[in-house]
Amino acid sequence: MIVGAGFGGLRVARRLKGAPVDVTIVDRRNYHVFIPLLYQVATAGLEAEEIAQPVRKILRTTPNVRFRLATVTGVDLARCLVTTDVGDLPYDYLVLAAGSVTNYFGLESAAPATSGLRDLDDAQELRDRILLAFERAAAEPVPEQRRVLMTVAVVGGGPTGVELAGALAELRRHVLPHDYPDLDLSDAHILLLEAAERLLPGFPPRLQAIALAKLRQMEIEVRFNAGVASVDESGVTLRNGERIAAGTVIWVAGMRAPPVAETLSALHGASGRVVVTDTLQLPEHPEVFAIGDMAHVCGPEAAPYPMMAPIAIQQGDLAAENIRRLLTGESLRPFRYKNAGTMATIGRRAAVAQVYGLQFSGFIAWMLWLTVHLVWLVGLRNRLLVLINWAWNYITYDRGVRRIRGRR
Amino acid sequence: MIVGAGFGGLRVARRLKGAPVDVTIVDRRNYHVFIPLLYQVATAGLEAEEIAQPVRKILRTTPNVRFRLATVTGVDLARCLVTTDVGDLPYDYLVLAAGSVTNYFGLESAAPATSGLRDLDDAQELRDRILLAFERAAAEPVPEQRRVLMTVAVVGGGPTGVELAGALAELRRHVLPHDYPDLDLSDAHILLLEAAERLLPGFPPRLQAIALAKLRQMEIEVRFNAGVASVDESGVTLRNGERIAAGTVIWVAGMRAPPVAETLSALHGASGRVVVTDTLQLPEHPEVFAIGDMAHVCGPEAAPYPMMAPIAIQQGDLAAENIRRLLTGESLRPFRYKNAGTMATIGRRAAVAQVYGLQFSGFIAWMLWLTVHLVWLVGLRNRLLVLINWAWNYITYDRGVRRIRGRR
Repeated sequence: MIVGAGFGGLRVARRLKGAPVDVTIVDRRNYHVFIPLLYQVATAGLEAEEIAQPVRKILRTTPNVRFRLATVTGVDLARCLVTTDVGDLPYDYLVLAAGSVTNYFGLESAAPATSGLRDLDDAQELRDRILLAFERAAAEPVPEQRRVLMTVAVVGGGPTGVELAGALAELRRHVLPHDYPDLDLSDAHILLLEAAERLLPGFPPRLQAIALAKLRQMEIEVRFNAGVASVDESGVTLRNGERIAAGTVIWVAGMRAPPVAETLSALHGASGRVVVTDTLQLPEHPEVFAIGDMAHVCGPEAAPYPMMAPIAIQQGDLAAENIRRLLTGESLRPFRYKNAGTMATIGRRAAVAQVYGLQFSGFIAWMLWLTVHLVWLVGLRNRLLVLINWAWNYITYDRGVRRIRGRR
Repeated sequence: MIVGAGFGGLRVARRLKGAPVDVTIVDRRNYHVFIPLLYQVATAGLEAEEIAQPVRKILRTTPNVRFRLATVTGVDLARCLVTTDVGDLPYDYLVLAAGSVTNYFGLESAAPATSGLRDLDDAQELRDRILLAFERAAAEPVPEQRRVLMTVAVVGGGPTGVELAGALAELRRHVLPHDYPDLDLSDAHILLLEAAERLLPGFPPRLQAIALAKLRQMEIEVRFNAGVASVDESGVTLRNGERIAAGTVIWVAGMRAPPVAETLSALHGASGRVVVTDTLQLPEHPEVFAIGDMAHVCGPEAAPYPMMAPIAIQQGDLAAENIRRLLTGESLRPFRYKNAGTMATIGRRAAVAQVYGLQFSGFIAWMLWLTVHLVWLVGLRNRLLVLINWAWNYITYDRGVRRIRGRR
């Protein structure tokens, strides 16, 4: 039984192809989503379905793997049962790969007034919110209110926050002036609020500085030591008491383990992650593996590995291999992360990337970013459509998907 | 002031480009949608945004036309005001082009248990409903219940009903067997329920017969004289008392004028349409025009013109011309429909078409249908993406967009 059809869970399913096991993969959504491109859905650059692939489609080539659409509510470790909204499902071996959810760091009250960015519904809601704020601004007679409606505050200076802020700046520069000729877009402020003292934690300082300079050149107001004390419908209050009025507040300050991790009677690490051995097993339950964002696995420096897709994928590989080894009685292998690097895009021909120890920025890093994301996207059709959208956006300076959903 | 950014309303806006008038076009959505392809969104063939275009994008080349996102709640003919959810908007000349809504013919109680197909939200809800029914069937142990979940009843044998039934049959034949290897797809019944005695009213009898034969060859159960008495969550009861259990019921039996037409103190024709003169004006209010689906305009045989996009477009042309004539004091021109023909697609290489009096079926009609719909679609980017999706679907026998939205 695999819980979760994200990067890690799907990898386990694929690597168990042909193994002498009947695999069931459970997810509360019928599709796998390519989370690194969610911000482009939110900023009208890509259509939602272009970065999603139905799980059943992915599993067509693995006949020993079945899919089950269900929300997992808990795990009964004693009876070897996964409890779901459609009944209990028994397992012999279990891989928990349920990913992560938005971490509000105790500010859960902020959730209704902000948009997170963890799934396609989030991304489409955020797109609706941003576009609707500009529609309201276009109909707003009071200049001060108009300015507030056009202000977007991004909370969190990690890769998602940086990429979002950059995409919003390009929307403001290339798209919105043509759509809203009556609005003065110089009133449309974009703020990037980071609680610590630097952007892109984990990147080399040189690339952090390049990213910061590029964001500021794109007229994004980057604030450090800007921890958030509260968020409501009309803006953000910082811990130092400063008030920032904003029509849209986006919360991408971090992730935590999903509710199912909390229900587990196991040891929990920071952010609610489930502590597992270096072979990715629960200490008391060798038949249960946990991988990816929801698993606390200690790295070489005793710190847990960060929540990143490449780590989930490599842990998926190892979990599948260790299950095969359990079946044949071989000794299990420990997890060692092969770090190929990390990258973030900022805008047209602008990105930062560290690949196998080499640092890149500007056009080369941007081409690297495009290539890597296109290659990792699931499905040839998705790759083709995303490539066409990217080419279209690049050539026309336009964005195709500016629909506000819903009936008014 | 133009109410509605559908085929008719947008045409008026474009034809008033450069005229000595300030035009405001109001719609409750920020996008124009190409309704004839909605059924392909509902059957997972196209992505929603590929058949939508933001109104502001369309209006970039018409500087004397502004857009306003608002829901029109009524028209005050005496004071020349359109009342909306964001305030009253005054007009000198008004064009009512608000389209149509699903007509339940008095069976409004059926609405919650069925899916209509009048906008993108409808189409995506229908897609969710169909796919979710198959997910439930895959988890359903009782064979009889499984059969019911896999049964789809389409109510209404017009072009939309025929095209939907055909697309569902292809989904059942080419896509679902690979996604649901455990399900016996021969249990997945598709019914097309028509209250009258023939499909595709308005088509030549020979093409009606060809369409019927093709649908039956695709194993769609076509029923005539099958008027619906009631619909609930578990199926349809016909007027003759027969009960048809179905997991999904789609209501495409007809259209009626939208609520705003009812609020108008004017003469109403069948289906709540607003009766206008042959110059498209309200009899008592020459400054108010009504066009398209919501307008009752008598054709040469004293019957009102049907609700069809080409008629709305030609009436949009005339309304714009007549407004220009009013401004210069010229006499107005009456509406005469130039009927280029009508067409409906059924499946791969199968369609029926009557074009300038010539009848086509099979591959030629299908190519005609594809070409006409691609040409009429708004936006080069949309055309490109739709063409790629069609080519992809044709070559791979697959459908790309099988996402069930929402969080469970």
